[in-house]
Amino acid sequence: MTKKMRLAIDAMGGDEGVAMTIPGSAILAERRPDVEMVFYGREQEIKPALEKHPHLMQRSEIVHTDHSVSMDEKPSKALRAGRWKSSMWMALQAVRDKQVDATISAGNTGALIAMAKFCVKTMPYVDRPVLSALWPTVKGDCIVLDVGANIGADAEQLVTSAILGEAMARCLFQLKKPKLALLNVGVEEVKGLDEVKTASQILQTLNLPIEYCGFIEGNKIGLGDVDVVVTEGFTGNIAIKTGEGTAKQVSLMLREAIERSLIAKIGYILVQGAFKAVKERVDPSHTNGAVLLGLNGVVIKSHGGTDPLGYATAIETGCQMVENSLLEKISADMASFDRFQHADVKAKVASAGGM
Amino acid sequence: MTKKMRLAIDAMGGDEGVAMTIPGSAILAERRPDVEMVFYGREQEIKPALEKHPHLMQRSEIVHTDHSVSMDEKPSKALRAGRWKSSMWMALQAVRDKQVDATISAGNTGALIAMAKFCVKTMPYVDRPVLSALWPTVKGDCIVLDVGANIGADAEQLVTSAILGEAMARCLFQLKKPKLALLNVGVEEVKGLDEVKTASQILQTLNLPIEYCGFIEGNKIGLGDVDVVVTEGFTGNIAIKTGEGTAKQVSLMLREAIERSLIAKIGYILVQGAFKAVKERVDPSHTNGAVLLGLNGVVIKSHGGTDPLGYATAIETGCQMVENSLLEKISADMASFDRFQHADVKAKVASAGGM
Repeated sequence: MTKKMRLAIDAMGGDEGVAMTIPGSAILAERRPDVEMVFYGREQEIKPALEKHPHLMQRSEIVHTDHSVSMDEKPSKALRAGRWKSSMWMALQAVRDKQVDATISAGNTGALIAMAKFCVKTMPYVDRPVLSALWPTVKGDCIVLDVGANIGADAEQLVTSAILGEAMARCLFQLKKPKLALLNVGVEEVKGLDEVKTASQILQTLNLPIEYCGFIEGNKIGLGDVDVVVTEGFTGNIAIKTGEGTAKQVSLMLREAIERSLIAKIGYILVQGAFKAVKERVDPSHTNGAVLLGLNGVVIKSHGGTDPLGYATAIETGCQMVENSLLEKISADMASFDRFQHADVKAKVASAGGM
Repeated sequence: MTKKMRLAIDAMGGDEGVAMTIPGSAILAERRPDVEMVFYGREQEIKPALEKHPHLMQRSEIVHTDHSVSMDEKPSKALRAGRWKSSMWMALQAVRDKQVDATISAGNTGALIAMAKFCVKTMPYVDRPVLSALWPTVKGDCIVLDVGANIGADAEQLVTSAILGEAMARCLFQLKKPKLALLNVGVEEVKGLDEVKTASQILQTLNLPIEYCGFIEGNKIGLGDVDVVVTEGFTGNIAIKTGEGTAKQVSLMLREAIERSLIAKIGYILVQGAFKAVKERVDPSHTNGAVLLGLNGVVIKSHGGTDPLGYATAIETGCQMVENSLLEKISADMASFDRFQHADVKAKVASAGGM
């Protein structure tokens, strides 16, 4: 008999609130009859929405709170005003107190990171949470992290991100040794930021469950040759947004070029199925479910503007992290990485520095 | 009567060497009857290639040298071995000594940057050369810099890049006040790296010929709402490569999706003109001609793998920089920016730091 899974849902998070989170949860509940859910937020909104999904309602609980974090609130303000009492905070508190196995929120990203850091706290040897994202490639998905939880990272923080990423990849892709690379401006050992070069040297010395592939350049992520791409949050955020923007731009340019010719317009009717398939493949709502890694609990960030199907995908990601023991995997691998023992590697990189 | 323009061509630079540089120069020479060229490299290769283009040959000169920089040579080695005598160095020396108006090379990027820095040297108040790139957007091209000449940049270096970029935009797009933005992880004033925030504050105080638009995120570059996007070289390199990679990935995914269905294959015959148009639009060889900015001379970096048409575009970019007085524009604007007078701005940003 499998253990029942229990999830905390920030019902108010996301652009549409309960109109998206409840139908999304209902889709997941149909797929997974073993899951129970606790919804945090305004009962007067949650209850009527739940009543439309009896199969979910009978496995649900509502914890009422009037306060919710708005999507554009500054993280510092959200933390000051929403601590203890907002639906986001209470959902996080539940995973911290082991009342649930995972927490899912489609709310304000900055607020979620700040609250998770403050409430759930990071695991031993991890000094800050890291935001992962799924990048659709020609071969499948690739995990990219950090995509914006933190600005900048030293070598040890990059190695920590590598461990968080490989653990997530093992849970999500069922791989024994995910292929992992560091994002850099070239593949040669001499190029790039010192901290990236040092992290590369450290990764070569550690006995981690990864196939370490060295450096990867921005134009190779989409090829899908690696499962995990590690970078710091500023570059990661710009890379993932540039990728999203370019995918949209190419579609837009194709559409405009087609509109200019009658023959192309007729042809479009025949190829539109292929266009739709690709659009769905690169659409964020179909690769939804960023894991906020490094915390004492499984916390999933869903896109705020996703649809119920995308929200169900985010919850599913949470379930997979729980079933495949994400936290235990991270603990085991962090234990094998002593982050303060790399002075020799750093000195080596520094002395080999320059051009 | 317009003054004749004289250009130095590193004939050996690029994946194909003279087989690409000479036909490319011939295309440009047809378009511009007022241009003279000096080719640097192996005479025994250049001469027979030139003989196929009499209209170019009669306006050309060959300066023989046996030494050329290979495409995969490390910059430090290229500099040690190729100083004084390589075709790249000698072409750079010509622009430094005012024997020519501009130098064009499709050779090894790292070596070109290192040699240009060492040979041509940077302009007063500019401490290092910056590599620009043209980013195809839905509305036209956008200049992005730095795309990899330097790793990291402080606030003053970002402002210098902004000045170099606006001067290039005024020369290339004939704009009086180009729209300029700083690449960042969010558009709010409080987000991002301190140096980016400080640079933003400085740009607001300067009286530059720009329309300053604040921050831009990675997903908005392709919309073409700004003419110049400024960032440091690590992020810029990863952003532009990610953009290129994603454009290729989307095309590849579409092609695969179309191959899976007979109807789509038939439709493709009708839309392939539109596909080709978009491919050409986002193809680097059609937006060729990165300017290496901040030097005491106009130096153009062409893609190494471009075709003769792309190479002609790169040379054309050089001509436009000369005709529109790039160096004079940069000098004038750098003079109005005293880079050591921003302690107050920095203190303000530092005290407003944190979340």
